Amino acid sequence: MLDAALSCLDDGLTRVSLPDVASRAAVAPSSLYRRWGSVENLMAEALLDQSRMTMPVPDTGSVRTDLIAFAQGLARFLASPRGAAVLRTAAVLEWSEDRAAARTRFWDERFAVSGVIVQRGIDRGELAPDTDARLLMEMVVAPLHLRRLLLGEDPTTMIEQQVDLLLDGSRRTP
Amino acid sequence: MLDAALSCLDDGLTRVSLPDVASRAAVAPSSLYRRWGSVENLMAEALLDQSRMTMPVPDTGSVRTDLIAFAQGLARFLASPRGAAVLRTAAVLEWSEDRAAARTRFWDERFAVSGVIVQRGIDRGELAPDTDARLLMEMVVAPLHLRRLLLGEDPTTMIEQQVDLLLDGSRRTP
Repeated sequence: MLDAALSCLDDGLTRVSLPDVASRAAVAPSSLYRRWGSVENLMAEALLDQSRMTMPVPDTGSVRTDLIAFAQGLARFLASPRGAAVLRTAAVLEWSEDRAAARTRFWDERFAVSGVIVQRGIDRGELAPDTDARLLMEMVVAPLHLRRLLLGEDPTTMIEQQVDLLLDGSRRTP
Repeated sequence: MLDAALSCLDDGLTRVSLPDVASRAAVAPSSLYRRWGSVENLMAEALLDQSRMTMPVPDTGSVRTDLIAFAQGLARFLASPRGAAVLRTAAVLEWSEDRAAARTRFWDERFAVSGVIVQRGIDRGELAPDTDARLLMEMVVAPLHLRRLLLGEDPTTMIEQQVDLLLDGSRRTP
């Protein structure tokens, strides 16, 4: 049913209804109403579920190559039609209090899982011991989302340069 | 008329129509049709026009304080109801070829204007001479947009930490 919800997005439906989803999932609309109550609740769960599946955390032995591989995987998903639809829908969905709490848990979980890359880098002595894992991962993923959602650019480019900027900074070194 | 278009967004209208805007602007719908042809064209121009006005480029004599002040100004706008509405609408608007070209010109112009901060930092010897001004400015603004649009978090926090990460990097220094 979650997949049926997302497949409505693939067809560019900006206003998905529970009957639309029910028809694709070949179930009675009443069963969707019982379980989710509203199409917004259903879409919120479908979005969070979809995004949860699509971000493996690499472990190459180097923080630079881990961050690049992680960002490339995310960028490929965001560049796909499904990725674009998920992003657009997440951006406009009305996040009620319940759904906002689920969203916060989702992002907390995502940053905790991907933050392992940073922790390993600290443990190996590659990164400063006080590196903020969540902040660093936010800054790895943020430009990919900006490009895809607002700039209309390919999120799969410039990834190495982004990671190098976050590792080495832009200050002139003497 | 552009302001009337944006004021429809302030009221949470996700589907603005030309007659809505015409009624707020107290003009005949036909005059809006003549000038813009579609509500999407009108909204695209209103969004780009609005965003163009709201980002002064500070000149404090230090690249760090310039970047922080610039990001704080943008974050305050994004945190406002108008800012949120502009972001959401930009994220879901169908960007036809013409409108996409206008959007690209808009961002190119924005990054060129704000990139002056980076160029001054290079000229003062604060930044590495080969610093990519556009990439650095994208990475300054990207987390603010991500927080506001997808994470549902306050974009006005963490700005100093973000700027310091972009200046100093996260590598362990011996």
